[in-house]
Amino acid sequence: MTETQGLHIAVVGATGAVGQQMISTLEQRNLPIKKIIFLSSARSAGTKLTFKGEEIEVQEAKPESFEGIDIALFSAGGSVSKELAPEAVKRGAIVVDNTSAFRMDENVPLVVPEVNEADLKQHNGIIANPNCSTIQMVVALEPIRETYGLSKIVVSTYQAVSGAGAAAINELKEQARDLLDDKEIEPKILPVKGDEKHYQIAFNVIPQIDKFQDNGYTFEEMKMINETKKIMHMNDLPVAATCVRLPVVTGHSESVYIEVEKEGVSAHQIKDLMKTAPGVVLEDEPKQQIYPTPASSVGKNDVFVGRIRKDLDEDRGFHLWVVSDNLLKGAAWNSVQIAESLLKLGLVTVK
Amino acid sequence: MTETQGLHIAVVGATGAVGQQMISTLEQRNLPIKKIIFLSSARSAGTKLTFKGEEIEVQEAKPESFEGIDIALFSAGGSVSKELAPEAVKRGAIVVDNTSAFRMDENVPLVVPEVNEADLKQHNGIIANPNCSTIQMVVALEPIRETYGLSKIVVSTYQAVSGAGAAAINELKEQARDLLDDKEIEPKILPVKGDEKHYQIAFNVIPQIDKFQDNGYTFEEMKMINETKKIMHMNDLPVAATCVRLPVVTGHSESVYIEVEKEGVSAHQIKDLMKTAPGVVLEDEPKQQIYPTPASSVGKNDVFVGRIRKDLDEDRGFHLWVVSDNLLKGAAWNSVQIAESLLKLGLVTVK
Repeated sequence: MTETQGLHIAVVGATGAVGQQMISTLEQRNLPIKKIIFLSSARSAGTKLTFKGEEIEVQEAKPESFEGIDIALFSAGGSVSKELAPEAVKRGAIVVDNTSAFRMDENVPLVVPEVNEADLKQHNGIIANPNCSTIQMVVALEPIRETYGLSKIVVSTYQAVSGAGAAAINELKEQARDLLDDKEIEPKILPVKGDEKHYQIAFNVIPQIDKFQDNGYTFEEMKMINETKKIMHMNDLPVAATCVRLPVVTGHSESVYIEVEKEGVSAHQIKDLMKTAPGVVLEDEPKQQIYPTPASSVGKNDVFVGRIRKDLDEDRGFHLWVVSDNLLKGAAWNSVQIAESLLKLGLVTVK
Repeated sequence: MTETQGLHIAVVGATGAVGQQMISTLEQRNLPIKKIIFLSSARSAGTKLTFKGEEIEVQEAKPESFEGIDIALFSAGGSVSKELAPEAVKRGAIVVDNTSAFRMDENVPLVVPEVNEADLKQHNGIIANPNCSTIQMVVALEPIRETYGLSKIVVSTYQAVSGAGAAAINELKEQARDLLDDKEIEPKILPVKGDEKHYQIAFNVIPQIDKFQDNGYTFEEMKMINETKKIMHMNDLPVAATCVRLPVVTGHSESVYIEVEKEGVSAHQIKDLMKTAPGVVLEDEPKQQIYPTPASSVGKNDVFVGRIRKDLDEDRGFHLWVVSDNLLKGAAWNSVQIAESLLKLGLVTVK
């Protein structure tokens, strides 16, 4: 199609918020693509999308859709992945799955290329893309872990509604307009579409992302805790998370407190690490009021880090402010990056 | 005026966001008031306000305005307090000051009645009202400190724009409307009116409240750190803060990580403490999705606490979500409450 030699790619969930970003990321990058197919539920099948100027009709995702596919990028919800990812693997595809379906499966590598690209070599057909809020944090922390060791993480998140899909974005915008016009609102989607209660998100803050677990933590918090340990290969690393939804469309922010193992490290040394860290852009000049914000991170693949400062009491303690586009590095870009890594490592070959 | 016997009260900064809340709080409470005067800058003088149905003209605040005043509630900015609070004291008034002008002065008690009411006895004419984000946190933590000891606080805030005044509220609303209409915006107020750069606040997050200090922390963060130690009489308590401004009109939220001194404490025991803590309302039923949000705290004097859970790794670690109306308990109500405490303790007498 676009190359005479190249990969056969499938995008599953092509019409969704992340699927759309996957398609535009694939258009911008140099992965050699010979053929690309867009798959979705029966409901969205028939939609016409373009790829590099060519119109492509979205097809209903079925087991046989994956015949001849080299890499299938899944972002159509956990139940679709559970049903169809094994079918795709059976037909010879490598699946990069952006849902939580397989992340904690010990036979499935959970990969952020800047952190644990080598884990791809252990794949058995399925590779999991971590949760958006986990990805940006580990990209920022990995160079610190590598150089000074990590002994504690306490993170509070400031998460955008696009992580909850297109309906949540619409809800935020409609609520904001209605509240500005002094109209009544009736929350229907957030915090979790399938949960019992819904709360105002415009001009408000909801300390719940995903459903509550029996231990009082939300599933989103447990994802950050467990995925961070798995990606960093540190099962005993103390990680704590409080995940909060904000009236922001796109761009997750995180207030991260860490303790390093080494004593006597300075904030300057942490900043120096960030300057050369893969995937990281340091934006940290307090005197010029330079720090990352969600609005300035939208549309970019990088993880932006600022507000780096040493704790005033704990010699091994540091604070960081980490921001990234949750649809890109948090989802679509990390998935495409995994596909690029598979090619680079020779784990998939161009025919 | 409203009582035959009662106090003479002055409200300085009567036309501001906090001043207005002070007036309505004084209307609702039972403090015996014989005479009340409203003071402001020359610019706002002449404005007519009502108090318990009676129209009162705002006068320009001058040293002689405080003749005969028993209690003067100041909320007109630090420079006004620095100039006029000593003049008021010279004329026999007790000043309750809601600015940062005197908070760290060792001769000035910094008071949250639920925590350190007795400190009022040491006053020398001026009593400082703490920063809004500090007040709600210490109200929630004091019962824990008292019962189990406190050895560490790490807080990340989610602060509303009303803390930056009426112009910031207008900026948020106008920006939100313009962005919804796809219009260009030009930020002019936030994060700090008098600072060099201004950033979008609608549908965004700004990790700067007040100006940066030389140590890389903002003044707001240093206020939380230093004021908490002073109010709790714990100069050596490790306290760390990251203060963040959100597109919320009113209601500050805080993600608070603490470590207690005692081992083996359960989340259930912390919840039990909150049930009877003065000034606190426990809203913590994860299975019913019950937790505090800013929208549900507006207009209430209480501090709302939820999401209480034990850290999964640190036996002495706990996480709490603390929300309060920043204009009420964070400012106006705490000031009026201090006036009530002064009367209760016999530090001011009704003539």
